[in-house]
Amino acid sequence: MASTALKMLVDVHSHVYLPRYTALLRSRTTVPLIKTLTTPDGKPDDRLLILDHEPSGGRPVGPQYWDRDEKLKFMDKHGIDVTVVSTANPWLDFLPPPEAHKLALELNEDLEQYCSSSPKVDAGNSTQIPRLFGFGLLPLVPEVSVSSLLESIKQISELPHLRGVIMGTRGVGKGLDDEALDPVWEAIEKAGLVVFVHPHYGVDPKAWGEKDNGHVLPLALGFPFETTTAITRLILAGVLDRFPSLKLLLAHSGGALPVLSSRLSSCVVHDPVVASRLKHDARYYIGKLYLDAVSYGPEEMGFASESIARAGRYENGSQETATQKALSVKRSLGSKRMMFGTDHPFFPPLSTTEKWKSVVENLQAIEEVQGWSEEDKDGVRGGNAVELFNLKA
Amino acid sequence: MASTALKMLVDVHSHVYLPRYTALLRSRTTVPLIKTLTTPDGKPDDRLLILDHEPSGGRPVGPQYWDRDEKLKFMDKHGIDVTVVSTANPWLDFLPPPEAHKLALELNEDLEQYCSSSPKVDAGNSTQIPRLFGFGLLPLVPEVSVSSLLESIKQISELPHLRGVIMGTRGVGKGLDDEALDPVWEAIEKAGLVVFVHPHYGVDPKAWGEKDNGHVLPLALGFPFETTTAITRLILAGVLDRFPSLKLLLAHSGGALPVLSSRLSSCVVHDPVVASRLKHDARYYIGKLYLDAVSYGPEEMGFASESIARAGRYENGSQETATQKALSVKRSLGSKRMMFGTDHPFFPPLSTTEKWKSVVENLQAIEEVQGWSEEDKDGVRGGNAVELFNLKA
Repeated sequence: MASTALKMLVDVHSHVYLPRYTALLRSRTTVPLIKTLTTPDGKPDDRLLILDHEPSGGRPVGPQYWDRDEKLKFMDKHGIDVTVVSTANPWLDFLPPPEAHKLALELNEDLEQYCSSSPKVDAGNSTQIPRLFGFGLLPLVPEVSVSSLLESIKQISELPHLRGVIMGTRGVGKGLDDEALDPVWEAIEKAGLVVFVHPHYGVDPKAWGEKDNGHVLPLALGFPFETTTAITRLILAGVLDRFPSLKLLLAHSGGALPVLSSRLSSCVVHDPVVASRLKHDARYYIGKLYLDAVSYGPEEMGFASESIARAGRYENGSQETATQKALSVKRSLGSKRMMFGTDHPFFPPLSTTEKWKSVVENLQAIEEVQGWSEEDKDGVRGGNAVELFNLKA
Repeated sequence: MASTALKMLVDVHSHVYLPRYTALLRSRTTVPLIKTLTTPDGKPDDRLLILDHEPSGGRPVGPQYWDRDEKLKFMDKHGIDVTVVSTANPWLDFLPPPEAHKLALELNEDLEQYCSSSPKVDAGNSTQIPRLFGFGLLPLVPEVSVSSLLESIKQISELPHLRGVIMGTRGVGKGLDDEALDPVWEAIEKAGLVVFVHPHYGVDPKAWGEKDNGHVLPLALGFPFETTTAITRLILAGVLDRFPSLKLLLAHSGGALPVLSSRLSSCVVHDPVVASRLKHDARYYIGKLYLDAVSYGPEEMGFASESIARAGRYENGSQETATQKALSVKRSLGSKRMMFGTDHPFFPPLSTTEKWKSVVENLQAIEEVQGWSEEDKDGVRGGNAVELFNLKA
């Protein structure tokens, strides 16, 4: 299929607060919430507060967060053909189980409608496909029933434009290494849905010290630390041994997980109890993951690609010699599991007319990765997502 | 000098608890401490507890932590010619200022003695140099006086076998981005001492969840997260703009800092207040750092090397075009700031006769980095350390 399909630019990391979710945020008096201030010249000034220790009184929020036309305008401006849209953090994490359950089902229907009624784009082979697909929501909150989670997975798998689920790192309160999630992983794996794992909580803000660095530290470091920790715990709990076909797509290129994976392997090997729980060297599991290409630099992307490519060396029972192993690291191979993303509508440009720097940088980084062929780059820009999400009419 | 010197293997990341420090740990009843249990067959069983939430009742500790003969035996076993030894964490962090001051001065004298009386090794050019050099200690604790810190820097710079200082990430209580440290950086820079920045605290252990993963998560992830955070804060506070000749050597290849540096740059650019404080793009500062080669994988080392090599692109006012910038990334260049290390006596092997896996892995990783010449590898194995620490008789 890939060979006859048009070259498309597909954004797998793009967020929305649907109107129903926005209304909820506006109705709230504790974080997360949207509050409306007034500018000095009397205009309304909506502010989003989503973190417990939100610096500088929240961030400006506007139609780009909820208006589909704004999403499409952004896509047009940057030549993005198709976007797989997901609700932005903190999803339903803060709701009691009955509300989370109800809202998940409603928001999944809303998102299906948002996608199914979108304009279409030529996908080659004389076919037209919608420009918008989506990740659904599960009511992942403490004390939710398994049946509630399974019901929403079933719903998502039956909604034709939803191709995965987005989730944070808390699971049902105890993280992604909680055995209580096994029925969830099982159902998701069976349905062939992609799980987009995305951070929200960062780490304890005491780590950031007393200086005012705005959002820089929690976003630049806290987010990737959180994703790294969550997936490491998931790996150490054997989730990828029990559910080897699970498709996990990690935000921000997996954070620090690839670069710490050899250190992780070494620490595991030195702890026989942990080591005995795992079927393979820790580095093997990096090759089971999918990573967005949202790391802003060609060297970062090239390295992430290598960390996937080398994973085969670390399969238990692999018969390769050391030299064969060294030779087997082909960045090309790793690129197949990496996919362009924008993080829209976050990181807006400082002026309204220009292209978004974050988008331009990530596209340029993909272009500049040494060792990726043009075909590899086309894959990262769109072909890999077309295949993973089966983006057809 | 390097061209006529012998090829040496130099370990820049190797720890000791000197007898005076061990005695202090044995005398204590709160962490950090060494306690002596008894084995089922009646033998004494020393246990080291250094973390506030130490899992599994501490780790076995023995002569390798304090006996110089054990250090030399370890060096012989692995062909290490010279080691630059440093006190292991948590250094003097837990002491009141007068005790920290007194002990710093005493331990620096002890370490000088430990090194100066060590056996010698042929360093080429018909010269013999000691096999042991050292990093001294500063009394970096809350409410210490600047004069106390400056006194210990002066002492270290006058002790012939001490070539730097080791420090944690708390500074005098508020981290390494605290302006109170400016006189310390200034004196260290002037003395030409190398600062070995090493983690101890990790992150809030709530991040590790409820499963028992031994020491794996705090060591594999918490340590690098801590170093990454500390140096990022130092960079954002402009320390490397104010002290551009400061020589910072980061433990564990700088943790996640290189791989998150493009994301960091992007977050800084989107925050004009933070951006306006810095002279250069965040990635520029990676090129001012030195990294140990303790990351256990050739791809990790190659990437770290690239992150240093590319730093010149990001100097403010750099006139390179995009194409020149892409071409200018030569891993070779980055290797000059990387240095072999072992983390001895941590990560001991599971049996006593074998070579230490952690050492073998890091040496093999250096050997396998793609894009490093034999000369680059010799530099990482020893030549770079000989030059940085001026390892002469």
